[in-house]
Amino acid sequence: MIYRAPLADIGFALRYGAGLPAAIAEGLFGDLTMDDVDAVLSEAGRFAAEVVAPLNRVGDTCGTPFKDGAVTTPPGWKQAYDGWRDGGWNGLAAPVEWGGQGLPQTLNMACLEMWNAAAMAFAVGPLLTIAAIDALHAHGSEALKRAYLKKLVSGEWTGSMQLTEPQAGSDVGALRTRAERAGDGSYRLKGQKIFITYGEHDLTDNIVHFVLARLPDAPPGTRGISLFLVPKFLLNADGSLGARNDIRAHSVEHKLGIHGSPTCTMILGDGDGAVGYVVGAENAGMACMFTMMNRARLAVGVQGVGVAERATQQALAYARERRQGRTAGMPATQSAAIIAHPDVRRMLLSMRALTAAARTICYATAIALDRSERSAGPAARKAAYDLASLLTPVAKAYATDIGIEVASLGVQVHGGMGFIEETGAAQFYRDARIAAIYEGTNGIQAIDLVTRKLALSGGAAVNAHLADLRAIVETVKANNDPTLGATAVRLEDAVECLARATAWMLGRPDQEADAALAGASPYLRLFGIATGGCLLAKQAVAALRLTDEAAPRVALARFFAENYAVQSAAIERTIIEGAPGLLGADAALS
Amino acid sequence: MIYRAPLADIGFALRYGAGLPAAIAEGLFGDLTMDDVDAVLSEAGRFAAEVVAPLNRVGDTCGTPFKDGAVTTPPGWKQAYDGWRDGGWNGLAAPVEWGGQGLPQTLNMACLEMWNAAAMAFAVGPLLTIAAIDALHAHGSEALKRAYLKKLVSGEWTGSMQLTEPQAGSDVGALRTRAERAGDGSYRLKGQKIFITYGEHDLTDNIVHFVLARLPDAPPGTRGISLFLVPKFLLNADGSLGARNDIRAHSVEHKLGIHGSPTCTMILGDGDGAVGYVVGAENAGMACMFTMMNRARLAVGVQGVGVAERATQQALAYARERRQGRTAGMPATQSAAIIAHPDVRRMLLSMRALTAAARTICYATAIALDRSERSAGPAARKAAYDLASLLTPVAKAYATDIGIEVASLGVQVHGGMGFIEETGAAQFYRDARIAAIYEGTNGIQAIDLVTRKLALSGGAAVNAHLADLRAIVETVKANNDPTLGATAVRLEDAVECLARATAWMLGRPDQEADAALAGASPYLRLFGIATGGCLLAKQAVAALRLTDEAAPRVALARFFAENYAVQSAAIERTIIEGAPGLLGADAALS
Repeated sequence: MIYRAPLADIGFALRYGAGLPAAIAEGLFGDLTMDDVDAVLSEAGRFAAEVVAPLNRVGDTCGTPFKDGAVTTPPGWKQAYDGWRDGGWNGLAAPVEWGGQGLPQTLNMACLEMWNAAAMAFAVGPLLTIAAIDALHAHGSEALKRAYLKKLVSGEWTGSMQLTEPQAGSDVGALRTRAERAGDGSYRLKGQKIFITYGEHDLTDNIVHFVLARLPDAPPGTRGISLFLVPKFLLNADGSLGARNDIRAHSVEHKLGIHGSPTCTMILGDGDGAVGYVVGAENAGMACMFTMMNRARLAVGVQGVGVAERATQQALAYARERRQGRTAGMPATQSAAIIAHPDVRRMLLSMRALTAAARTICYATAIALDRSERSAGPAARKAAYDLASLLTPVAKAYATDIGIEVASLGVQVHGGMGFIEETGAAQFYRDARIAAIYEGTNGIQAIDLVTRKLALSGGAAVNAHLADLRAIVETVKANNDPTLGATAVRLEDAVECLARATAWMLGRPDQEADAALAGASPYLRLFGIATGGCLLAKQAVAALRLTDEAAPRVALARFFAENYAVQSAAIERTIIEGAPGLLGADAALS
Repeated sequence: MIYRAPLADIGFALRYGAGLPAAIAEGLFGDLTMDDVDAVLSEAGRFAAEVVAPLNRVGDTCGTPFKDGAVTTPPGWKQAYDGWRDGGWNGLAAPVEWGGQGLPQTLNMACLEMWNAAAMAFAVGPLLTIAAIDALHAHGSEALKRAYLKKLVSGEWTGSMQLTEPQAGSDVGALRTRAERAGDGSYRLKGQKIFITYGEHDLTDNIVHFVLARLPDAPPGTRGISLFLVPKFLLNADGSLGARNDIRAHSVEHKLGIHGSPTCTMILGDGDGAVGYVVGAENAGMACMFTMMNRARLAVGVQGVGVAERATQQALAYARERRQGRTAGMPATQSAAIIAHPDVRRMLLSMRALTAAARTICYATAIALDRSERSAGPAARKAAYDLASLLTPVAKAYATDIGIEVASLGVQVHGGMGFIEETGAAQFYRDARIAAIYEGTNGIQAIDLVTRKLALSGGAAVNAHLADLRAIVETVKANNDPTLGATAVRLEDAVECLARATAWMLGRPDQEADAALAGASPYLRLFGIATGGCLLAKQAVAALRLTDEAAPRVALARFFAENYAVQSAAIERTIIEGAPGLLGADAALS
């Protein structure tokens, strides 16, 4: 169950998939060099592998006992968190003025992949804190920022994201938590929140909750939601910890996976109400929340990559060691490592290829985020912002879907041992399952992609992306290396299928909204396949040009194209032709 | 978490998918009528829903504590087993001369589906006993049968199947358990077995273990394996229980799922060796084991159907009750049941369609088994035997693969609640995972299909099956009902893709064995899709002809064709063109 940070794969994907060196060369990150990037990655990989990874099983088996309102994190987690915080990892991409290091989000996401591969239940806490920092930085008042931002950036305190209520999950507009104006500029909150990740824990002295609530005179639905900062401990005038606020954990859920992460039901306002401070304007909470959610959604996609990478490493190690049966021509007295059997190779290559595709999609999204904040000129920033917005639901949903698929294959590679909990493969299968659900289910991501993101800038964003993919296909065709097999043909087909499906989606009139929604999830998958396949091929072509060690990247790009991109025509057909059969199937659901 | 036996779906699949009435009309089952069949199904459904299903969660949470060599089954399980045994369910399809009811295997499999839907961990015990009965009946001596068969048929004793050893999983020929001739016709066994389902428990007074072992002078590999009957308690001359035999459980595994089923490590021969009796001839154990395994493999496929049906029922119930968001045109003050959202409908229809396809494949396999034993004339029996042999790996692997897929979709439909163990959806996701692994991993099934089953009778078996599928396609085309949408076109394409892939497989020379193996798993999936899709369409056409309630069956057949059969061309391509990319990808696995 050892984890080895895949620094070569990550570094190559950052360079030749995401194009980080070009962004550096444009001066987007000051005097940062790729050597700096490599040094950070190497140190993060070391910490992830040596300190965090050994805690993964401890977290799974010990969970987070809850007693008298307090959560105890698993043995060793506080020390690991302290070391992680002291290493400055929390503020890696946070603003320098608040104590962060101002490094690229792209680099931060690569590090998050490693924290999540090491222990998803550990990394999900910082993931939310980092998202909360974004929201507070973008929307908070100067006073709030001064009081809270530095300690959130340093990791001295953590953040929680409190949206969900029993009747308000995907439908966040249905929330009922109430906030009353206290007359002194603060608010008093009363209500109940569920599924709150790290809503209570013993890692830090204070926890800064970001809570969605509704003012008494708020309009209904999402236009009447405000975001409040609600600290566990109120601050004295000098910034030191003061009185305990009126917010508490009521219970901790018994979950399928990520047992090391406490998922809390929270009660606000047993007494006079929890003291809260509005972030941004009243009734403008959704905008703040989307700042927080969008970063978090990409980071959850990265969780899918992390758990897939970890499951793949373990399955590969097992398949190299476990001996069963013989390959063709082997004498009866010998036995082969199961990695030699073609069907096992298929599983392992599937795991590798899907993981690499999801990784390169996530990093491409991350660099678009960086460019949206740092590129020269508003037009370039706007184009990058649109691209990041377009790719975020794809990164989230595709990467977490394949996280489950890869973890399940990992169990299968282990045979009977995979079903035994001590082996560890089963934990990945359990842990991976949540990432397709939280931060907006993958169905919600698909709906977001189809109903909001395709229409960005009148379709210009998606068309620009399609042009990028077509350009990659051209370079693959031009390269024409025989080891690429049918890569170019399959990818060209995938991109054109995506283009037609996109045109079909953009062409749906309002009265056919349900037809578009019926095809949303297959559309997102096609988007992921075409994008992931092209970005893998882009890396393969770069490898062929640059090195004499191109074989692994070429093999993966080819395997992905011949086994996944090849599905594109069928998916296009399902999208374009499948709606009547789906929408007319009432009788089969009665 | 209520389970309602899907009697209408099961009955329709038996009638119009498997063609049970025609077999009855041919006189294959004596004076059995379809009314009898319906009565048995109804009673089985009642027992499954009312007695077994409520134990499913108890089994999951309590597991099977192990102490001092003894296993305690979960609270209520012994009473349920007693009721189940007293109901005569164990011997439903067993020979009348040994106390069974001699009913069709097809009917037995339909009941097994319901036991497994109710509680997979409960049903897996009887499933193995039933398989053991087959082996003993087919291969055992008269003396052994007289001593053991009646009590196995009645369920007074259970059977266990002991193949696996730490170094001998898929590679059963590598087993090391030794059997020495005792000189009195019996044997003494020494060795260790792992992953033994219900190897020890407190449901019955005795357990009859069926153990593969090797004689001192046995040839190496699978040709030197013998099957032994090793009772937990030896029998006195009068058949009463005598001395404890030298076989014991050493430990019970901590598993991902089916916690209610004790999975034991077994030690044979702490002392002088466990007393065993050979079943069949010495060194002919593999043939006996395959009798046992083949029935068990189909039954494990049926487990996939059962858990998928249960997960689907729960997801449907949740989706009808849970309200979130609005459908197009709904006022902001209202909210819709999530079943109204197109993306949720897609998930639910996928669950329904995959479950129905797997069910109809399993029942088609079962009726072929019945015909292989009962049809008039050796030619008809041989053809049916070949068909059963051909379909068994497909039933096992396709149905258990979709069991996992459906259970995972069930979690997703529940959103955050799906990740909370109390909801129950997560248990199906955990339980379903084993069925793709045990009784031969699904990779082993694919290899069996491609290397052994396609070649049966010189390819005549698979070609006869293709002809059957083509005939179904013709009836769908002839029917031409507009509500079937693209069903005929997609299925015709699927069958022709399967035909070409089959021809390609049959055409691989020995030196291209690895190319065939590389495509084995996709080939099995294509086989399942084409077969399942056609059998669903056959039912839909029958429904259109027979009833005015055809809509649900038509909708499912259409959904399957337009969303799954549509993938056939891509899978064919992967099979026929994908081998070089897979076999040449060493660099990506280093």
